[in-house]
Amino acid sequence: MMVRAAVAGASGYAGGELLRLLLAHPRVEIGALTGNSNAGQRLGGLQPHLLPLADRVLEPTTADVLAGHDVVFLALPHGQSAAVAEQLGDEVLVVDMGADFRLKDAADWEAFYGSPHAGTWPYGLPELPGARAALRGSKRIAVPGCYPTAVSLALFPAYAASLAEPEAVVVAATGTSGAGKALKPNLLGSEVMGSMSPYGVGGGHRHTPEMIENLSAAAGERVTVSFTPTLAPMSRGILATCSAKAKPGTTAQDVRAAYEKALADEPFVHLLPEGQWPATASVYGSNAVQIQVAYDEAAQRIIAISAIDNLTKGTAGGAVQSMNIALGLPEDTGLSTIGVAP
Amino acid sequence: MMVRAAVAGASGYAGGELLRLLLAHPRVEIGALTGNSNAGQRLGGLQPHLLPLADRVLEPTTADVLAGHDVVFLALPHGQSAAVAEQLGDEVLVVDMGADFRLKDAADWEAFYGSPHAGTWPYGLPELPGARAALRGSKRIAVPGCYPTAVSLALFPAYAASLAEPEAVVVAATGTSGAGKALKPNLLGSEVMGSMSPYGVGGGHRHTPEMIENLSAAAGERVTVSFTPTLAPMSRGILATCSAKAKPGTTAQDVRAAYEKALADEPFVHLLPEGQWPATASVYGSNAVQIQVAYDEAAQRIIAISAIDNLTKGTAGGAVQSMNIALGLPEDTGLSTIGVAP
Amino acid sequence: MMVRAAVAGASGYAGGELLRLLLAHPRVEIGALTGNSNAGQRLGGLQPHLLPLADRVLEPTTADVLAGHDVVFLALPHGQSAAVAEQLGDEVLVVDMGADFRLKDAADWEAFYGSPHAGTWPYGLPELPGARAALRGSKRIAVPGCYPTAVSLALFPAYAASLAEPEAVVVAATGTSGAGKALKPNLLGSEVMGSMSPYGVGGGHRHTPEMIENLSAAAGERVTVSFTPTLAPMSRGILATCSAKAKPGTTAQDVRAAYEKALADEPFVHLLPEGQWPATASVYGSNAVQIQVAYDEAAQRIIAISAIDNLTKGTAGGAVQSMNIALGLPEDTGLSTIGVAP
Amino acid sequence: MMVRAAVAGASGYAGGELLRLLLAHPRVEIGALTGNSNAGQRLGGLQPHLLPLADRVLEPTTADVLAGHDVVFLALPHGQSAAVAEQLGDEVLVVDMGADFRLKDAADWEAFYGSPHAGTWPYGLPELPGARAALRGSKRIAVPGCYPTAVSLALFPAYAASLAEPEAVVVAATGTSGAGKALKPNLLGSEVMGSMSPYGVGGGHRHTPEMIENLSAAAGERVTVSFTPTLAPMSRGILATCSAKAKPGTTAQDVRAAYEKALADEPFVHLLPEGQWPATASVYGSNAVQIQVAYDEAAQRIIAISAIDNLTKGTAGGAVQSMNIALGLPEDTGLSTIGVAP
Repeated sequence: MMVRAAVAGASGYAGGELLRLLLAHPRVEIGALTGNSNAGQRLGGLQPHLLPLADRVLEPTTADVLAGHDVVFLALPHGQSAAVAEQLGDEVLVVDMGADFRLKDAADWEAFYGSPHAGTWPYGLPELPGARAALRGSKRIAVPGCYPTAVSLALFPAYAASLAEPEAVVVAATGTSGAGKALKPNLLGSEVMGSMSPYGVGGGHRHTPEMIENLSAAAGERVTVSFTPTLAPMSRGILATCSAKAKPGTTAQDVRAAYEKALADEPFVHLLPEGQWPATASVYGSNAVQIQVAYDEAAQRIIAISAIDNLTKGTAGGAVQSMNIALGLPEDTGLSTIGVAP
Repeated sequence: MMVRAAVAGASGYAGGELLRLLLAHPRVEIGALTGNSNAGQRLGGLQPHLLPLADRVLEPTTADVLAGHDVVFLALPHGQSAAVAEQLGDEVLVVDMGADFRLKDAADWEAFYGSPHAGTWPYGLPELPGARAALRGSKRIAVPGCYPTAVSLALFPAYAASLAEPEAVVVAATGTSGAGKALKPNLLGSEVMGSMSPYGVGGGHRHTPEMIENLSAAAGERVTVSFTPTLAPMSRGILATCSAKAKPGTTAQDVRAAYEKALADEPFVHLLPEGQWPATASVYGSNAVQIQVAYDEAAQRIIAISAIDNLTKGTAGGAVQSMNIALGLPEDTGLSTIGVAP
Repeated sequence: MMVRAAVAGASGYAGGELLRLLLAHPRVEIGALTGNSNAGQRLGGLQPHLLPLADRVLEPTTADVLAGHDVVFLALPHGQSAAVAEQLGDEVLVVDMGADFRLKDAADWEAFYGSPHAGTWPYGLPELPGARAALRGSKRIAVPGCYPTAVSLALFPAYAASLAEPEAVVVAATGTSGAGKALKPNLLGSEVMGSMSPYGVGGGHRHTPEMIENLSAAAGERVTVSFTPTLAPMSRGILATCSAKAKPGTTAQDVRAAYEKALADEPFVHLLPEGQWPATASVYGSNAVQIQVAYDEAAQRIIAISAIDNLTKGTAGGAVQSMNIALGLPEDTGLSTIGVAP
Repeated sequence: MMVRAAVAGASGYAGGELLRLLLAHPRVEIGALTGNSNAGQRLGGLQPHLLPLADRVLEPTTADVLAGHDVVFLALPHGQSAAVAEQLGDEVLVVDMGADFRLKDAADWEAFYGSPHAGTWPYGLPELPGARAALRGSKRIAVPGCYPTAVSLALFPAYAASLAEPEAVVVAATGTSGAGKALKPNLLGSEVMGSMSPYGVGGGHRHTPEMIENLSAAAGERVTVSFTPTLAPMSRGILATCSAKAKPGTTAQDVRAAYEKALADEPFVHLLPEGQWPATASVYGSNAVQIQVAYDEAAQRIIAISAIDNLTKGTAGGAVQSMNIALGLPEDTGLSTIGVAP
């Protein structure tokens, strides 16, 4: 049985990556592709790497166009998903790759996004405690942000094992595709090549409350996150360097054991052998997560580092993984743990 | 029925890319993996992007280790393939990714490689006239060089249609993986990032006679090729800008028609719509070739430009494509025309 | 005695590079800085690398603002220089970094730019035969395009010595700053990193007639140029690979001798020792030109390759060099032949 | 009066950058250039960007060759400086760009470097409290490491003003030139382009005790530093993201005021206007430091971020700046605060 999927927002980077994955998915048939400003254009001109879809033409993003599919993926700007989702029936699986339904806390939503909270959907990060159960059979999925994916997977084992103090410090580097296709001067190739720069410093990045919710849930206590994102001269990838002070009495062995236990059965998360460190190139184009953890005895801190592809596991791959669970398919259907390197 | 394949030279870039493709090939089972200087090491440390093979250990490259497979891929330094191939039985399909058996002309071989010519095997560029027939059922395949793949595909339609004078001028940019993993100062990241530089200028690059043989065969007359390779600040990709003076009376319509005819049925070669130009990013990690052609009326030259991934279509993907033909499998088994972009 | 200079178009890449050089020029005092869409903004926000000018505020580009300076540099979009220049007195040195006054041939101008020809000013490529004499004391200078700078310097010695047939083939790679700060999708970092792509193929690039004029003048006969520009994943630099068939009887020694003679006394053009090839990184941020030439005996072609920094020697450095000549200053005042590498 | 300077280790990246700066220094005359493995070679082949020195030939690194200069710069592998310095007279200014004489604490030296401590020389980071006084007239200078330069400048104002708890967390990204010209597989262009990866995680990086000494001195109490270095896909630049919990009662205004006060008179350190963030591209090739600081109220942390060029301010520029002070020259002689961008 094939699942028929529509993609709203097929001209952007998230939409393009999703189509790349769906083309390789043995159980998905690609239906309507929509895009507002690009409606009427050939996909071959907008996503020239998706050769099999080159002659498909984008339609406008309307409920009519999206109707009649088993799954609808929404890769829309923040704030636009609720209106579209409402018009799709309850029997349709709606996978929102935007932020609208990620947060549980309405006050946080309003503080960071400046608009009324639309609600909370089952959260598409299956590796978190309890997440898979909520996704099974669900008709609504909120795909996590790319940074929260990388950071939550790096730190939840430490918090779930009560090894870390509830004050996390995160510095993450992202490839430029994380900022999307918007035409901003600071995203020009001339500006980003050869340069590292931070942005959203001091607690203001919109992914911060999402990390806080995930880590607090794992810890069973309120965790603060000092989050600094930086833009790196590469197209794809997130390297998240995350740390927290160890609770008194923690040993390096405790830390290693907690990570081995938490990640042992995960199909996409790979705790590297001791002495090997993650590199974003190793997960390029794949749904894999590489994680390593160290204990700095002098500073008494646990340092956990994760590498993901922001567009794959960080967005479109996470969406497909969660869709698989919701539909009762094997979780890794159509997804790969093999990166494209060098 | 599964085909059991061994890979000699599994620690290099060509070997790694081949393994990436074979992991996705539904009819191949990966057997022995060898590497001389790295024998005894875990593949996970050498090719960290190949997660499913992380715990495999490299064996030494000997006939004993390679025996008992249906297919043996040789990703060895030039000059080492003949000795290994001789020890493998005639019933084994040997796919040589090195140069040893590519050239027909023994004198050219000796002039460019400085050693006795080992012979000529069926040539693994199926898109060239007559190539598929020679590959079907063959037990020996010489995989073309990455530059000759890009250049021959870009220019053979013009020569096959007798539209171009037999003096081609080629300037090609390659990603650094084309130079392999050898530790040379000019390949350090600090040297290549932010820099373009030529090498092997003036006719000395070893891929030149291979291009000459391919284009001369298509033209039915001796074609000279002025070839200048350049190193570009990227890991993968070849952009080959190829041109030749048009024969008198040639029109832009003639040129377009010749390319449409020559490439119409090719599963991996995509002649772009007029006005769209190739980009190496669009074929990143895929076996696709993007080609565009223009006719410069003022200079009376045909300009054909191709983009490939040097490691995929230019090496490992071409090897798998040719293997599929030799084994009687559908030519595109396990191969994709979808690039990883952006 | 100090020269007071105004810069119209100070917020773009050409304007920024010019200011970088003028800040280091011992005889120039920086006066008015203008920019239309950015008027009123601090330069520190627009050109954060120009720390000493961080608190300067851009003024609108008007004749009033530009009046009262000894030199006015125009870094404006094509077609806007004539109107501004007319309003500046004949005693003011006007250095136009745009295209308006570069071409001698009005028909070519109209064919390539689609507007009436504004005229021809002394051409700011001092290394060309006769160019220095025309610049001395001139009050108007047309700074060459970046590609014509790289290409003309690479090929004029061959043409001036009558060694090359009048059909040149040029493939050049440029850093993205050559395309300016305009917000175009294909210039986003996500698109250019890891990718090479051509543009303006087939004779349509506006720099083509400029190359033709320069090389034809050197050759004493009409030279055609087949020019293919490509965009490389780097911010700065042009690598121009230029070739032409050698006239009958030409030897490698003839070629070397012609280049040594033509370039011997040039302060900024460096013919590399045989065996060493140019790299754009070596001229990064400098006014130097690296050139190497080879003779391909099999293809009977002369291959000349040049590397420049498109923003320095290709634009702003060429402008300062020409200004120095016009003002009677030592030609290398304030200019360097030292690149910033690695 | 000119100062005659020798450079030991002229073929590496630090040595090359030093020569680039010395060529522009109005009071320095470049004397002997040495290099052990490269002795006898032309500098033009090793440092092709240093055109004015292209014909200089490297001599072996011996006391005889280095004798007779006013200043000797040592850009040697760790552990080699002491033996050379001993043989140079006390009247020669010796500037050590290696680690040998940086640390005050002999136990830390031995723990991190595994060899006996050679001693402590005046520390070449003039911006630290008391450092200028120690450098004036000194005949020995220990140039700081690149990371400690970036990190100490970012955090010392917070510690000097007693605003921060003594537990700093630092994540820094460096360009590959920071790892030098050594031929290591992980430094190949194919590996670093498109990838971010950490190294030396968990407290083991040799620059850690240097940061601890600097920050502890500023704080007047022992400061721990959790330091994670990462390798970024760029040739130059360090972006250091540094944070520490604020002491109780600290306000955002306190933080801003402390940084304004500490950095107000520094010629090379530029505290950016609020809302603007550092970028390594802005200090490319310059001796400038860009710093910004924020206070995250939710996490109660002070986040200070600095950008430097690791080869300029981080190594060779810092060396020249300190030399200027030692010799009684204006501190900024021959040094620039202007970056090469874009």
